[in-house]
Amino acid sequence: MAERLDERAPDQRDRLEDLGEFGLIARLTRGLPGRVDVVLPAGDDAALLNLGGGEDVLLAATCDAQVEGRHFMRGVATPEEIGWKALAVNLSDIAAMGGEPLWALVSLLLSAGESVTALDGVYAGLRALAGRYGVAIVGGNIAGTSGPLTIDITLLGRVARPRALTRAGGRPSDALLVTGTLGAAAAGVLLATGTTSHGAARAGIAPELAKRAHDAMAAPEPRVAEGRALAASGVVTAMLDVSDGFAADLGHLCAASGVGALVEEAALPIAPAAVVVAPVYGRAPLDLALYGGEDYELLLSVRPEGVRAAVEAVRGAGGSARVIGRLTADAGRIESEAPSGERRRIEPRGWDHLRYLGV
Amino acid sequence: MAERLDERAPDQRDRLEDLGEFGLIARLTRGLPGRVDVVLPAGDDAALLNLGGGEDVLLAATCDAQVEGRHFMRGVATPEEIGWKALAVNLSDIAAMGGEPLWALVSLLLSAGESVTALDGVYAGLRALAGRYGVAIVGGNIAGTSGPLTIDITLLGRVARPRALTRAGGRPSDALLVTGTLGAAAAGVLLATGTTSHGAARAGIAPELAKRAHDAMAAPEPRVAEGRALAASGVVTAMLDVSDGFAADLGHLCAASGVGALVEEAALPIAPAAVVVAPVYGRAPLDLALYGGEDYELLLSVRPEGVRAAVEAVRGAGGSARVIGRLTADAGRIESEAPSGERRRIEPRGWDHLRYLGV
Repeated sequence: MAERLDERAPDQRDRLEDLGEFGLIARLTRGLPGRVDVVLPAGDDAALLNLGGGEDVLLAATCDAQVEGRHFMRGVATPEEIGWKALAVNLSDIAAMGGEPLWALVSLLLSAGESVTALDGVYAGLRALAGRYGVAIVGGNIAGTSGPLTIDITLLGRVARPRALTRAGGRPSDALLVTGTLGAAAAGVLLATGTTSHGAARAGIAPELAKRAHDAMAAPEPRVAEGRALAASGVVTAMLDVSDGFAADLGHLCAASGVGALVEEAALPIAPAAVVVAPVYGRAPLDLALYGGEDYELLLSVRPEGVRAAVEAVRGAGGSARVIGRLTADAGRIESEAPSGERRRIEPRGWDHLRYLGV
Repeated sequence: MAERLDERAPDQRDRLEDLGEFGLIARLTRGLPGRVDVVLPAGDDAALLNLGGGEDVLLAATCDAQVEGRHFMRGVATPEEIGWKALAVNLSDIAAMGGEPLWALVSLLLSAGESVTALDGVYAGLRALAGRYGVAIVGGNIAGTSGPLTIDITLLGRVARPRALTRAGGRPSDALLVTGTLGAAAAGVLLATGTTSHGAARAGIAPELAKRAHDAMAAPEPRVAEGRALAASGVVTAMLDVSDGFAADLGHLCAASGVGALVEEAALPIAPAAVVVAPVYGRAPLDLALYGGEDYELLLSVRPEGVRAAVEAVRGAGGSARVIGRLTADAGRIESEAPSGERRRIEPRGWDHLRYLGV
């Protein structure tokens, strides 16, 4: 066995902040052995696995943790919202594969001072969202910690093999679509944590818009029905959810598909809350939409002749989707076009849990 | 939505320590909606789930977290051992169902000061054990935390429906068997953390025995092959792994099966390390075997006529198993019999992650 940790000099340590989350994942998972029944390994929104049941049914598996002080703050979100969101972010990953969510395993890390009433609230939020999508909580684990409250959920789902959607598969000339609106969650973060010298301007934000921004941040609606309808439509070539941020996630789609993208700025569905809140904090609404993250909308590419079918599939599921641009053959080049015709590069940056949160 | 946490007075808070881990799980999971495809819900070593693939193949799913300062300590265990054990405890749960482990999702919680070299070591340990059992790491998540290093793993496996073993199913007169030996991990904990005024006695412990105790504590060998062989033997009526402690886990088996148990003290396979280490710390070797926990052996009940088949199944898988008593019709009464014939109750106590670790 290797030397013990405490015997290592600090200068022998590599630095987490130089690697970032994706770099660290790549480093740690390099050379891991695979299995033939792993249809899609780690790296997409969920893994796709073949249990070998005979039919063409795949298991979709994903996990995501919510950590107090990083992903949520008490006093900003209620316990119910915290539990809701912990499941919602995982539902969004299954939705992005076109999958049907089935079963969740919930791992809780608690400190000695934790309130049981608060945990009741967390579970009430979890239960409410699980009930909406028919998800059963089939396992879990509770462990003590000296650290912050953490809710780590693994969500399992099912998808018919021919319908499964991944980040790869987008082709030049495919239309680029997004569901719902972008930037509302970032507006919620600004309202909850931002500083402003414009108290009057802030006070002028309509309560209804402030509530929408809060809800988008604290209790997002995963696009489960929309994802399944899109998978069934047969016209989608690639899909993922907007969690890291539109620009970063578009970068993921383009990288996995080996394409570029051109986004029409005027077509981006910027959330009304972002339009109103951003200027109060000296930010451009477009920046919130492109880089804010945690929208939990679906971003997808569609065969040019399938746009109407995709939009109608989402509408039939109770949602909305619109064309915001197209994929191009210029692999890795991601640009936006302003109404003036001016083009500029969109940096595929966004939310990096290690870099952006001081780790 | 409910009131915010910070608005609650402390005296409104229920106390975690009064509930304990199992009480809290029962409270939080009360009334959760189920699904018809959940063959076995939370509460056993793993959930059993029907993906609906046509054949009689079930998915087994379990999750368990290892938290620094609670489940492992640096300076005691190497990073490689920490990673190994994080997967081993989950493999042991799948083994207890008679399942074949397939896929793992690994969730890491890291602080800003974490050493990348240490994480490389954790993954090397994980990789070594995953490779041994052909487990693919198919997903994961890395999040920052202000708390201790935590490795939370969800492990998925497969088991043929007729072969799946649970804690229920034990019947009066069934033989009670256990694999391997008991108490070595507890001896390792004593050596690593116990205080003794008998330095000379401690120094007299053979290095080979001390190493076995350390390895049992820091890098246990899950009984995966043994579990599958036992499931295939067709003679096992109930099974679980010894994680909370022999006495507590026997209590789980008896409760789930609605039976009692009589254990022959002289038949218990007390680990040589426990025999040697316990007295140095003023403890009885039997106490370590009954209550020490974290042995990750398999405890099972077998139809009376099937004992030879069970023992040979385990031997064929490279392990050992022996009869240590039998189940009785006296539900809930768990007793041991000393060589003198004297009987006493075994309290079904053991490891409670919330009570025993100060949470």
